[in-house]
Amino acid sequence: MTIRAVDLIVKKREGQSLSQKEIESLFQAYLRQEVPDYQMSALLMAIFFKGMAKEELIHWTSAMMHSGEVLSFPHLPAPKVDKHSTGGVGDKISIPLAPLLGACGFYVPMMSGRGLGHTGGTLDKLESIPGFNTQQSPQDFERLLREHFVAMIGQTETLVPADRRLYALRDVTGTVPSIPLIASSIMSKKLAEGMESLVLDVKVGKGAFMQSIEQARALSEACIDLGEGMGRKVRAVITQMDQPLGRAIGNTLEILESIEILQGKGPEDCRALVLKFAEDLLEMNQKDIRLAKEKLDDGSAYRFFLEMVKAQGGDLRYIENTALFERAPHTYIYEAKQSGYLKQAHALLIGEGCRCLGAGRAKAADSIDYRVGAWIEKKIGDYVEKGEKLMLIEHAQIGLEDAIERFDAAFEIVPNPVAKPQLIYETLGS
Amino acid sequence: MTIRAVDLIVKKREGQSLSQKEIESLFQAYLRQEVPDYQMSALLMAIFFKGMAKEELIHWTSAMMHSGEVLSFPHLPAPKVDKHSTGGVGDKISIPLAPLLGACGFYVPMMSGRGLGHTGGTLDKLESIPGFNTQQSPQDFERLLREHFVAMIGQTETLVPADRRLYALRDVTGTVPSIPLIASSIMSKKLAEGMESLVLDVKVGKGAFMQSIEQARALSEACIDLGEGMGRKVRAVITQMDQPLGRAIGNTLEILESIEILQGKGPEDCRALVLKFAEDLLEMNQKDIRLAKEKLDDGSAYRFFLEMVKAQGGDLRYIENTALFERAPHTYIYEAKQSGYLKQAHALLIGEGCRCLGAGRAKAADSIDYRVGAWIEKKIGDYVEKGEKLMLIEHAQIGLEDAIERFDAAFEIVPNPVAKPQLIYETLGS
Repeated sequence: MTIRAVDLIVKKREGQSLSQKEIESLFQAYLRQEVPDYQMSALLMAIFFKGMAKEELIHWTSAMMHSGEVLSFPHLPAPKVDKHSTGGVGDKISIPLAPLLGACGFYVPMMSGRGLGHTGGTLDKLESIPGFNTQQSPQDFERLLREHFVAMIGQTETLVPADRRLYALRDVTGTVPSIPLIASSIMSKKLAEGMESLVLDVKVGKGAFMQSIEQARALSEACIDLGEGMGRKVRAVITQMDQPLGRAIGNTLEILESIEILQGKGPEDCRALVLKFAEDLLEMNQKDIRLAKEKLDDGSAYRFFLEMVKAQGGDLRYIENTALFERAPHTYIYEAKQSGYLKQAHALLIGEGCRCLGAGRAKAADSIDYRVGAWIEKKIGDYVEKGEKLMLIEHAQIGLEDAIERFDAAFEIVPNPVAKPQLIYETLGS
Repeated sequence: MTIRAVDLIVKKREGQSLSQKEIESLFQAYLRQEVPDYQMSALLMAIFFKGMAKEELIHWTSAMMHSGEVLSFPHLPAPKVDKHSTGGVGDKISIPLAPLLGACGFYVPMMSGRGLGHTGGTLDKLESIPGFNTQQSPQDFERLLREHFVAMIGQTETLVPADRRLYALRDVTGTVPSIPLIASSIMSKKLAEGMESLVLDVKVGKGAFMQSIEQARALSEACIDLGEGMGRKVRAVITQMDQPLGRAIGNTLEILESIEILQGKGPEDCRALVLKFAEDLLEMNQKDIRLAKEKLDDGSAYRFFLEMVKAQGGDLRYIENTALFERAPHTYIYEAKQSGYLKQAHALLIGEGCRCLGAGRAKAADSIDYRVGAWIEKKIGDYVEKGEKLMLIEHAQIGLEDAIERFDAAFEIVPNPVAKPQLIYETLGS
């Protein structure tokens, strides 16, 4: 008995839930190209308007996950943990966090995506380390984990092929901002990569996909329900993304800042999040949360990082002597236009400015200049004198004018003191 | 400056109106295959949920109309009028109405569709007259009108190609039941065929697409706004379609009944609607409404029918001696199962029963047996004795069992008297 896709579209359009059997048949038919994209996109739009019930979303996500290979590492004798961020500007947290989690005794099977937005994604940042190879087979992924505890790789072709097709379709059909569709996209990949505990960094604010705490909470709850419904531990941390995270924006620059964090230094906000997520995963696995700070400050996390870079082909000389990294040929000091308190450093506009310089992609086919980017010198709430440095821009004489136009719109300085914004809003999940 | 389809989808998804320029660019790109079906179907689903503003729907319909040839007959020296029905079971009204309108001094450029449903459409019914040719070029259409005042033809390939593509897409993407999309589909074709005044028969009830007077009113108003927005006169008549119209259901049988009506006989409900629509069009064109009854009863309408059949290649001998029509080889008397008053003669179920016999299509590629069908012997409110004939079925020993199953569900007889249902609910438009 084959399903008729149009019947499922009508059912969803009328607000009813699709059954497990209907969803499984639909995905099988879609992957066999028997259900065309024009039916799937109509269904996605109906889901945008009508949402999905809890059980229905579990079946949907499970069907996506089982569209490809599903990894698990039952023989590796420690918990497998991961962290995923919904994305923000200057968000390099995964890079110091993954080795810290390894140092805390976890296996860290971390698969990341490429950035399509203001700056590169975690993969792009890692690839700015000469030699670092993020394209690993499932077999090599497992070997890396077994031998080095930590592996940071790109999503393989064999994992969750349905998500790649659906995401590409959603991107061109106005069906991206749907909580159940976002949740299923995130969780199907995380569930397929073999993690057992997950911390989700759900970013909210001017540089984030989620614009309100309410939206962020809805996405958090959907992901927690999904993970728990499939036997995983999931915690979601809702964090602020009005201004960029840390100081560095840009691929090489964020690697440099990650190394600082791993050496016990680095900006306070980055360090706070790295510790928070590590502590969450320790707590979720009934371990001593003091391990996080200990392993970051005693150099263990840094040693796990060196080991991971080496294991994945990266040239350690660059890490040990960061002066070797190739840098953009020009710098430009972006100054405060008046004296006062920094009220706004609009993350999206600053991110877009850096993309103009070449730090990110506008289209998937665009190439990235790893070298370019910016260092933020002032954070919201800081006092700044007129003419004082707000940002140091490293550029290659491409897009500077467009970037500055965005930076001009991004910064707002006011005469009266401004409170430092809260970094972590709330933690959800058990 | 090309439009990005995804931006228009998002705009509509958020409930905003698309501009004339956006809609025109979209249709041009869609017809050039630059906007794929998967984007159009997502947009159609967004329109299903968010509707369209009055002006926006005019632009949408105009863009559809201008996707192909647009006919007009300014040199023909009388008003061009037409009638369109949203479709019902036993609805042969156009066949006697068009020649009556010709007899009243109108030009009647009537383009109809093929039926996809319980029974054939007007074209299928006309084609059950041996030789009758509904496929005419725009040039022949104009010549037929000029010489004979009345032409009943199929939609040509060159008219409103956008509607054919959109309708096929809506059919498989759950986006058919949207008032603006239905209104634009109806009106783009009627506007392109060259009519100046239109009466719309909006059917409501068990055998109709519209299930409530409110829906029918919404569709009526959308069509009236559209027609008036484009300089035409439009009136909509909301009529009852709980039970089949007239006695005959089936292609040849409905031609036989149409001939009866044209000879001043025929069932009361059919005659009432034919006169009502003719009177409406006379009134809309400041003519004496008494012409309708006069021209029907003095044989003028029948003579115009004979002339049209002859002009379009039909064999007049069949009309003049209806015994020549080939009939189905078998009859079956469908009897009342109890005595009482007929409370229900469910039009959709009766229609579906006739489709089982071969009178209609389930898929566009299905062929029709013109001969088969049924004669309804009792109408809602009639008293009937157990064992008395409810229907005479003419069949070819195909699908009779399936048909009877549907007829069994269609008829309901109750002990207490039942009021005769109202045929015409209301008339909208000026």
